[in-house]
Amino acid sequence: MFTTKELLEKVNRYIADWDYSREPKGLYEPIRYVLSLGGKRIRPVLMLMAYNLYKEEVDSVLPVAVGLETYHNYTLLHDDLMDKADMRRNKPTVHKVWNENTAILSGDTMLVLAYQQMCRIDNPVLLKKVLDIFTEMALEIGEGQQYDMEFETRDDVTEEEYIEMIRLKTSVLLASALKIGALLGGASDKEACLLYDYGVQVGLAFQLQDDYLDVYGDPAVFGKKIGGDILCNKKTYMLINALLLADDRQRAELKRWIDAREYEPQEKIQAVTALYDQIGIRELCDKKITAYFEKAGECLNALEVDDCRKQMLREFIGSLIHRNV
Amino acid sequence: MFTTKELLEKVNRYIADWDYSREPKGLYEPIRYVLSLGGKRIRPVLMLMAYNLYKEEVDSVLPVAVGLETYHNYTLLHDDLMDKADMRRNKPTVHKVWNENTAILSGDTMLVLAYQQMCRIDNPVLLKKVLDIFTEMALEIGEGQQYDMEFETRDDVTEEEYIEMIRLKTSVLLASALKIGALLGGASDKEACLLYDYGVQVGLAFQLQDDYLDVYGDPAVFGKKIGGDILCNKKTYMLINALLLADDRQRAELKRWIDAREYEPQEKIQAVTALYDQIGIRELCDKKITAYFEKAGECLNALEVDDCRKQMLREFIGSLIHRNV
Repeated sequence: MFTTKELLEKVNRYIADWDYSREPKGLYEPIRYVLSLGGKRIRPVLMLMAYNLYKEEVDSVLPVAVGLETYHNYTLLHDDLMDKADMRRNKPTVHKVWNENTAILSGDTMLVLAYQQMCRIDNPVLLKKVLDIFTEMALEIGEGQQYDMEFETRDDVTEEEYIEMIRLKTSVLLASALKIGALLGGASDKEACLLYDYGVQVGLAFQLQDDYLDVYGDPAVFGKKIGGDILCNKKTYMLINALLLADDRQRAELKRWIDAREYEPQEKIQAVTALYDQIGIRELCDKKITAYFEKAGECLNALEVDDCRKQMLREFIGSLIHRNV
Repeated sequence: MFTTKELLEKVNRYIADWDYSREPKGLYEPIRYVLSLGGKRIRPVLMLMAYNLYKEEVDSVLPVAVGLETYHNYTLLHDDLMDKADMRRNKPTVHKVWNENTAILSGDTMLVLAYQQMCRIDNPVLLKKVLDIFTEMALEIGEGQQYDMEFETRDDVTEEEYIEMIRLKTSVLLASALKIGALLGGASDKEACLLYDYGVQVGLAFQLQDDYLDVYGDPAVFGKKIGGDILCNKKTYMLINALLLADDRQRAELKRWIDAREYEPQEKIQAVTALYDQIGIRELCDKKITAYFEKAGECLNALEVDDCRKQMLREFIGSLIHRNV
């Protein structure tokens, strides 16, 4: 079994050694750029961890792991273009360094490259199985992104709809990475599905925590500006529940801030945070996150694998829980 | 064996019956819209024709044929967005009916749906083989589109580079459709490669003829405005060779029209066409097209299939040759 650090190194080395000799450079250089920006490589590492629960060596499935990372980075590239985001991992985004057409076309090519990597599975039965999971995942992630964009112009998004959106947009990639890793490692369908469920719960917890940290995080640790979601009235789990659970006075004040056209940003952030505190949103969100992490833990417990082998996945939950709260 | 008309009907029926029940509608409705606009369905029909050379029934491989059509329509959707084209098949393009983000995301989902259709091949060995051809094709088409965009801002494009660009952008899709159809029908690798080469030659002839008809076509038959390439100085086979073969006076006049900022469109079209006539570009292009069609015919001759079975592919060449010239 490899440590998280060793798996991360393997992924990074594979990406660094990747052959980008295809032409034209104008198409492939943005792809090399995006993949070289780093990041935590959570998805390929999770896939390799799940594989490592059942098989020792991991080098033979590295192409598949990097296929998942390539897919993830393609979604970031196109999402950043759609969101008109200027920066990603402290570097200018592809449509800023190059242009919008390059961002479209290089992203498209990354999606094809992701499939190319997935197709490097030798066992034809596993290949078919993995491709079906990967394709369903890619459809769902597109659906999640579409819901996310549609929610921006709706003011009646329910908690259920929000959770479904983040399940699609965030969870199914983690879940599919784990399931694919398990199947490649020879796990039974039952085991693979437990790991999928584990990934879903971790993903939901992870995304809710991201929403939470956007309000209550330590700016020095969080890495993003605090209050961004509040300023753009993003319909997060927190805002949806605040509007639902507020008394009339609180709801009126919250709506006043949501509709306000001119305001001091810091003043809005402080006022809405104070309302969240009064309404009990902090505890509510905290409890929900814990509940998802606990469900994730239960999935892990149910796996028929030596407990010591599950330790790395447990530590992974741990490292996510204690990011900042 | 089915007639071209029967194959076309099968493809259109399959597309019309396709289940678009996935949500959200905002993502899948643009896909239904694009696929319902029709067109000649050349790629799926070619695939089925190649399949039909070796096997009688075609229904079992219809998903793969429609996967190729889905792929082709995804490229049109994204290319139209990149080219800022307002119309396609006499209907407004997706980014006009909806918006640019929808065009990006629905296009991405079409690429995934194309892979989903390809994955419906039951035989695992054929699945792997077809996916490798499809993926290489998709990479090459992206490369062709990138070259096409890069050529717009270059004035030193050679004939060789232009032919390579249209091979990538137009030919490999026709060629791959034929090769995939042949392999699914049980053809040998040698036969499949002959059909691939046939597709490459037909594609090159087809694209050169498109360039030719843009200058010499009958507007009533061609369907597009005559002279579009001349007005935007597109580096076609014709312009590249005109600049190469012109005498000093002709080259100076051609360059004057290329650099002109203000002019009467019809005047420019007439002047450049007259220069092409003088330089002998019409005959040159005509000969080149005929040469590609002849090479295509030779590939067909070499196939080890009863001659009567090749008739439909011959007629297909015929219908392309006599579009208008």
